[in-house]
Amino acid sequence: MERFSSVSMAVVRRLPKYHRYLEELIKNDIRRVSSQELSKITGFTASQIRQDLNCFGGFGQQGYGYNVDELHDEIGKILGLNKLYNTVIIGAGNLGQAIANYSFFDKSGFKMTAIFDVNPKLVGMKINDIPVVDVDELEQFINEHNIEIIVICTPKSQAQKVADIATRTNIKAIWNFAPTDLKVREDIIVENVHLSESLFTISYLLKEKEEQYRKKK
Amino acid sequence: MERFSSVSMAVVRRLPKYHRYLEELIKNDIRRVSSQELSKITGFTASQIRQDLNCFGGFGQQGYGYNVDELHDEIGKILGLNKLYNTVIIGAGNLGQAIANYSFFDKSGFKMTAIFDVNPKLVGMKINDIPVVDVDELEQFINEHNIEIIVICTPKSQAQKVADIATRTNIKAIWNFAPTDLKVREDIIVENVHLSESLFTISYLLKEKEEQYRKKK
Repeated sequence: MERFSSVSMAVVRRLPKYHRYLEELIKNDIRRVSSQELSKITGFTASQIRQDLNCFGGFGQQGYGYNVDELHDEIGKILGLNKLYNTVIIGAGNLGQAIANYSFFDKSGFKMTAIFDVNPKLVGMKINDIPVVDVDELEQFINEHNIEIIVICTPKSQAQKVADIATRTNIKAIWNFAPTDLKVREDIIVENVHLSESLFTISYLLKEKEEQYRKKK
Repeated sequence: MERFSSVSMAVVRRLPKYHRYLEELIKNDIRRVSSQELSKITGFTASQIRQDLNCFGGFGQQGYGYNVDELHDEIGKILGLNKLYNTVIIGAGNLGQAIANYSFFDKSGFKMTAIFDVNPKLVGMKINDIPVVDVDELEQFINEHNIEIIVICTPKSQAQKVADIATRTNIKAIWNFAPTDLKVREDIIVENVHLSESLFTISYLLKEKEEQYRKKK
């Protein structure tokens, strides 16, 4: 499996896009696609697409293009989507509930097993059929249910505490929505979603456009 | 302002990180920082940091490092955070409410003016002091209040409809959380937040690690 070691994260981050577009093609009963057509849909150049897919062995055939179902399955496997990951959400606030309600994650193999919260009023309730459990039971629950991924949706002030509890267990990854950088054991994968980084890109582009407009005048 | 034109989006997307870390330094009363120290905090290499900041003219001095307040201000200006952007949220579900409650955006200049929804039970309520307004009034509201940014938090099936309404107005940017790619006028900036792309990165890394582990055995 050496072929994976040299793949840059930039390529990896484009794969879910391919996967999503291929899913759309399947829904629309399109069974075959060229890199030129994929380019039109995805906005990446055809050569970029060929190069990306070549990192994993290359699925296309000259003059034929790609078999959509095959490519979709292969990318799914590369992304590890053919497995089941026991997952819990921590924080039953708006964001935690939004993620709990987003059934797409469950369908993709991220089995949302419980939502943890400190609020006794929420404990015992169900959100999208997922039970809300007292956060005091987090460590035990992770151990007993072989939880591999935790999703942190707590306020910033609580996020490190949660990470500390979780790192006493055998969890393998943290999906972190709290706007802070967590300190955890080195073998734990941390994927941060810093929404402000995305929003600030908008203000940057707005400002840049305004400056270009002013320059033209 | 030609200096901006050649800056790659990869650099732009790192700037909010610098901004956030510098804010932390200011809170901790640290007034001066070297690229080596910034490297330790941010995880980027010192040479990457120097290179990034040089794209905008370079604020550091050899042997002194960076003045934290100055650098924080400058990056804020580069990101366009010294301005006010009239913003509305569309969709008062969990995600829309999460964003409405996240006061940090408001503090950063994105003035959340209203939240639009179809649900008559929500219309007239306030979320974090922001009024919920009937989505039928969206177009008029955008025009009357000079709304520049809309945040789409609707289900996938409604997102393009909302985008169509908004593109009849003078909005300048869409922050899109719906898991779909919107078709809009070319001059409108669209920044997508596809959470599945972030989550799938985790499954990829988990799978890759497992394979490496198996190989070693």
